[in-house]
Amino acid sequence: MPAASKPILVMKFGGTSVAGIERIRKVAALVKRQVANGYDVAVVVSAMSGETNKLVGFTREASALHDAREYDAIASTGENVTAGLTAIALDAIGVPARSWAGWQVPIQTDGVHGSASILDIGTEGIKDRFAQGIVAVIAGFQGISPEGRVTTLGRGGSDTSAVALAAALGAARCDIYTDVDGVYTTDPRIVSKARKLDRISYEEMLEMASLGAKVLQTRSVEVAMIHRVKTQVLSSFDDSVGDNLPGTLVCDEDEIMEKRLVTGVAYSRDEAKITLVRVPDKPGIAAAIFSPLADSGINVDMIVQNVSDDGRTTDMTFTTGKADFDRAIKVLNDNAPHIAFERISTDQNVVKVSVIGVGMRTHAGVAQTMFRTLAEKGINILVISTSEIKVSVLIGADYTELAVRALHTAYGLDAE
Amino acid sequence: MPAASKPILVMKFGGTSVAGIERIRKVAALVKRQVANGYDVAVVVSAMSGETNKLVGFTREASALHDAREYDAIASTGENVTAGLTAIALDAIGVPARSWAGWQVPIQTDGVHGSASILDIGTEGIKDRFAQGIVAVIAGFQGISPEGRVTTLGRGGSDTSAVALAAALGAARCDIYTDVDGVYTTDPRIVSKARKLDRISYEEMLEMASLGAKVLQTRSVEVAMIHRVKTQVLSSFDDSVGDNLPGTLVCDEDEIMEKRLVTGVAYSRDEAKITLVRVPDKPGIAAAIFSPLADSGINVDMIVQNVSDDGRTTDMTFTTGKADFDRAIKVLNDNAPHIAFERISTDQNVVKVSVIGVGMRTHAGVAQTMFRTLAEKGINILVISTSEIKVSVLIGADYTELAVRALHTAYGLDAE
Repeated sequence: MPAASKPILVMKFGGTSVAGIERIRKVAALVKRQVANGYDVAVVVSAMSGETNKLVGFTREASALHDAREYDAIASTGENVTAGLTAIALDAIGVPARSWAGWQVPIQTDGVHGSASILDIGTEGIKDRFAQGIVAVIAGFQGISPEGRVTTLGRGGSDTSAVALAAALGAARCDIYTDVDGVYTTDPRIVSKARKLDRISYEEMLEMASLGAKVLQTRSVEVAMIHRVKTQVLSSFDDSVGDNLPGTLVCDEDEIMEKRLVTGVAYSRDEAKITLVRVPDKPGIAAAIFSPLADSGINVDMIVQNVSDDGRTTDMTFTTGKADFDRAIKVLNDNAPHIAFERISTDQNVVKVSVIGVGMRTHAGVAQTMFRTLAEKGINILVISTSEIKVSVLIGADYTELAVRALHTAYGLDAE
Repeated sequence: MPAASKPILVMKFGGTSVAGIERIRKVAALVKRQVANGYDVAVVVSAMSGETNKLVGFTREASALHDAREYDAIASTGENVTAGLTAIALDAIGVPARSWAGWQVPIQTDGVHGSASILDIGTEGIKDRFAQGIVAVIAGFQGISPEGRVTTLGRGGSDTSAVALAAALGAARCDIYTDVDGVYTTDPRIVSKARKLDRISYEEMLEMASLGAKVLQTRSVEVAMIHRVKTQVLSSFDDSVGDNLPGTLVCDEDEIMEKRLVTGVAYSRDEAKITLVRVPDKPGIAAAIFSPLADSGINVDMIVQNVSDDGRTTDMTFTTGKADFDRAIKVLNDNAPHIAFERISTDQNVVKVSVIGVGMRTHAGVAQTMFRTLAEKGINILVISTSEIKVSVLIGADYTELAVRALHTAYGLDAE
């Protein structure tokens, strides 16, 4: 009778968790504990903190305009180093381990160098090693393209490596070790009464990540949601990790007992507001404005069209990321003859504040509470956008902390 | 009619030649010049100087006893970085280039991790790129094992990568760029009148390398000799490189016009002398001593057995590398009952001085000149060993410079 196969655990460690040999030894000790708890363990590691920046600096110094394939060949090497060192540190404490580069697994990606997407992961080799009682240590952030070149998954891509590997292996859970001990109701640096969440739904986490919470790469949450990978965010500096769940579990909505109207308050300073003043108020004007922006790869987020004063012209306001701002202005000016605006008015001193919660689906009044709370503090709302589980407002950046704290209190999120 | 294929040139650059982006730009300029000279160029690069030591230091810090496969995965990454950066630097000056890791070429090796031997090199991918006018930049020092793991070729292994690649590609020449401008008749740091050789035969270069000259990895010379790869040693700090041969060409004996009795004087401080005092003078005693040493992987070099005084016992003297010395003593003591020596006498303060030259094959008197020269300087010879094209003597380390200078003069090698 073959032995019953063990549950599989994927453990991912970020750059600060593997920043030196002493830190890597602590990682090995955490892995050893989970092996003792009866798991087959796959470890995914980032490069030592600072290492990828150093390598990227080299490529920029060599040439500002460099081939993205060479960038990937260079930038991916930091993870190979920490994967090998982690395997050595595990061996040294009696836990047999071997390292894998992305191409060895293989982690197959598309050919979009610099921000590739994972297409498929071969798990046979890793499972063979599991059967021999060997821990698999996989270099994060990297894969191999259809042409056999090394690819990278974009900054923070090791989170996605880990979640995708957990999906491919059918892992019981993916634990993302980082330098914070979980996902908070809001940024604890701003709100001292922020509470760590025990659980958060995939949908909420996705909104939190894309609306400014930096704890997980947005794409990794998408992969976790699609494949229903139970994902825990927890601290590698906390020694109390066992089979309990000390961090925050990202999971299905129906696995969350505590029902909340609002789960968290997020904010993003990476916003720029652009207003086209007095554009013709006629059908097709939105297409004339936003098609050329889309063609240039510029993401437009919040959009509001003012009520027309005179029935002939209107103002169109929207936001982009700060990195896209200069290009957006250029595209708009290049297309000025088609759009026929009077002038462009801009503001980069803005912030987007969002409240997120699946409870909104069934409870009215969340947006009203937000507007009333901000009005009571004298905060002017510049733009509003909503989706099924979030309400976002654009406000002056000076009001960020005031707004986040007031909303955190208004929705009953403050810790006792 | 297809275009006639171009001659192929392999250019190898060591760690000091790629020690930073500015140095890598100079490498790119040298490559560009040879592309302009009409060659298809394959570039082989080492890691930035100091980088491999840093990585090896990490592995040692992680565990003194580490898996050689993980060592290789880690230690090989420095070459991937410089290969990518060199490709970027070439692109930046209008020379299309792409980088290759060892596994991508593939450079197939055996599974002896840490000092693997190259078994085969696939050249199809590189030749496809040549046909498109693209320079191939290959990470040196590394290959892939039959099991698909990354291997390394031992310190200095990038020389071997380059020569083996030149053999596989059928290259017109392999240029080894280093921090010296060629092979000298002896170490110029000791003998100011040392002369740079224009040409040296494979056999002589092999003896020079194995007897202490550090300019080329010994194995790379073996590969060059077996495959008759014309190999030039030259300086990457010299800007006068064109299609002339400014360095030293390692080539067939019959391509060398100038006939010399002795080509060079080499010395090695990596020697330890061991004497077994009063061992039984009977058949089988040599086997009793040297078989257990060989079984332990200890290389024994020079051997001399003294004439027996009493017909019953004799002294047996031999040398090992300093790194093997402690282990050799342990093996001998472990086997003391079988060998039956009276005691062990040792001396690590010794040096091996060798004179090398294919002219010895046809001219007698080379050894006598050596012995007479050393005697005139009052230098005592401890052990002698000879081969077809070299004579080596072991002497006290304090006499190294005196002996090397005297021999250099005696064989007429001094520059005017």
